[in-house]
Amino acid sequence: MPNYPSHVWLNGAVLPAEAAKISVFDRGFLFGDGIYEVMVRLQGRFFYGEAHWERLERNLEKIGIAYSVSLLRQNVSDLAQVAGLLDQDVLLYIQVSRGTAPRQHAFPKDITPTAFMYLLPFSLPDVNTKRMEVSVLPDQRWERCDIKMTSLLGNVMAKDSAVTGGAHEAVLVRNGKITEGSHSNVFFVKDGELFTHPKNRFILDGITRDITLELAGSLGIPVREEAVAQIDISQMDEAFLTGTSTQIAAIGRMGTHTFFEGSEIGPITQRLQQAFLALKNQ
Amino acid sequence: MPNYPSHVWLNGAVLPAEAAKISVFDRGFLFGDGIYEVMVRLQGRFFYGEAHWERLERNLEKIGIAYSVSLLRQNVSDLAQVAGLLDQDVLLYIQVSRGTAPRQHAFPKDITPTAFMYLLPFSLPDVNTKRMEVSVLPDQRWERCDIKMTSLLGNVMAKDSAVTGGAHEAVLVRNGKITEGSHSNVFFVKDGELFTHPKNRFILDGITRDITLELAGSLGIPVREEAVAQIDISQMDEAFLTGTSTQIAAIGRMGTHTFFEGSEIGPITQRLQQAFLALKNQ
Repeated sequence: MPNYPSHVWLNGAVLPAEAAKISVFDRGFLFGDGIYEVMVRLQGRFFYGEAHWERLERNLEKIGIAYSVSLLRQNVSDLAQVAGLLDQDVLLYIQVSRGTAPRQHAFPKDITPTAFMYLLPFSLPDVNTKRMEVSVLPDQRWERCDIKMTSLLGNVMAKDSAVTGGAHEAVLVRNGKITEGSHSNVFFVKDGELFTHPKNRFILDGITRDITLELAGSLGIPVREEAVAQIDISQMDEAFLTGTSTQIAAIGRMGTHTFFEGSEIGPITQRLQQAFLALKNQ
Repeated sequence: MPNYPSHVWLNGAVLPAEAAKISVFDRGFLFGDGIYEVMVRLQGRFFYGEAHWERLERNLEKIGIAYSVSLLRQNVSDLAQVAGLLDQDVLLYIQVSRGTAPRQHAFPKDITPTAFMYLLPFSLPDVNTKRMEVSVLPDQRWERCDIKMTSLLGNVMAKDSAVTGGAHEAVLVRNGKITEGSHSNVFFVKDGELFTHPKNRFILDGITRDITLELAGSLGIPVREEAVAQIDISQMDEAFLTGTSTQIAAIGRMGTHTFFEGSEIGPITQRLQQAFLALKNQ
């Protein structure tokens, strides 16, 4: 479990984490009315930083929060300096809520968003050699999973249920089809082809998902953006998860189906992991 | 728009509202990981208070937050005293989040929930004579709408869309059927019978909804807990919303269909409103 950061940037000020407080009337607290983003800085540069900043901007727009992310961008290095994290690999978490107002469902006008971010020392393995055990659970979330919002109770309940059952992650099933994990995207390999749920309102448009599709293209691995049915899991040759901190992680077991025993990782998963590593080292 | 309360009870202390702050690492803020409840005190007693406290307890249990609501119950009068609201009708808002911990999706163990509540001076009309204009929108929320949680972005987006379009509330449609409003339940009348969505995971088990069903029983109005299809709205004779602060509110227009012009309110809606008034005055 990651620990608290030493410092937090909150609405323009860098504070010790324990001093970073918001009003109980912040709509992020009352309504889960906010957007978040996570990215990693490796060897001094944010990995696909532009894509992450753009996604943050796009998501704020989707829910009508007017906030310029440039203010955050300009302040990351200040935060890194105070936190003593200028020279390490870090994870950056960012959250922007609609702001503080007396409680009413409809969006208040002329409200100032609450923005906060923190950095955590974070080292990514060259290749994620962990073999994930994943539960298969019903996807009970709303129909706008493309929005990276902080109303995450559905996700946290799925993840907690997986962890309580001894798994690392949950993959979710809507109308018989596998959509994504509680905080990751999911891919399958069958007869040399790569399968993943199409980008629509039922999944997050994961940046590592995009990178993986690009890498597959450059490796000549055919890609089909089609959802895999739960009943077809056992017919698949390989499966893996993707995510900013997950990178590309092989799935050993999904529900009752075991893809690989022991520490084995499928050949296509391995090729993509190596290509991902090469990309990081570019 | 209601204003801020003067005071807030937060984790055992009564504070001026502007001093009531929580950590940015509260899971209510990071994940919308919390439960809320709203009730009203009329002429010195909480109206169906037991039902509200029990629902709060039930919902905390549904998402695995271990918190004894008795602590809140015992402290309401202290809060009322400090806020100078012992003798007025008030609205009581309560929220309990899972508590503060470093960010990770799965529930942390041994965490202390964050509990807060406030009272607002609040007068309910004898009868809600407002005629509601409501929008009809797709129900994009998750599949556990029975949980009164603070991950409310779906609800606030629907409500905001309705208000922006000049309506008072949105009623939501899932698989062609009307479920409920963004923060109310919905009823229809057809040929003297009352229709409302059955109590299941697609609607909140509204306490005013329950009261309305009991009143209908005692008035000899037949009740069918069946959802009404969106395409049948124009075939209905009357429609109304229910809720703790809404009470029973006639719907004048729903989407493109007008039930009643001007200030007219349907006869069954009126009978239920009068029976509700009698109940309050008991």
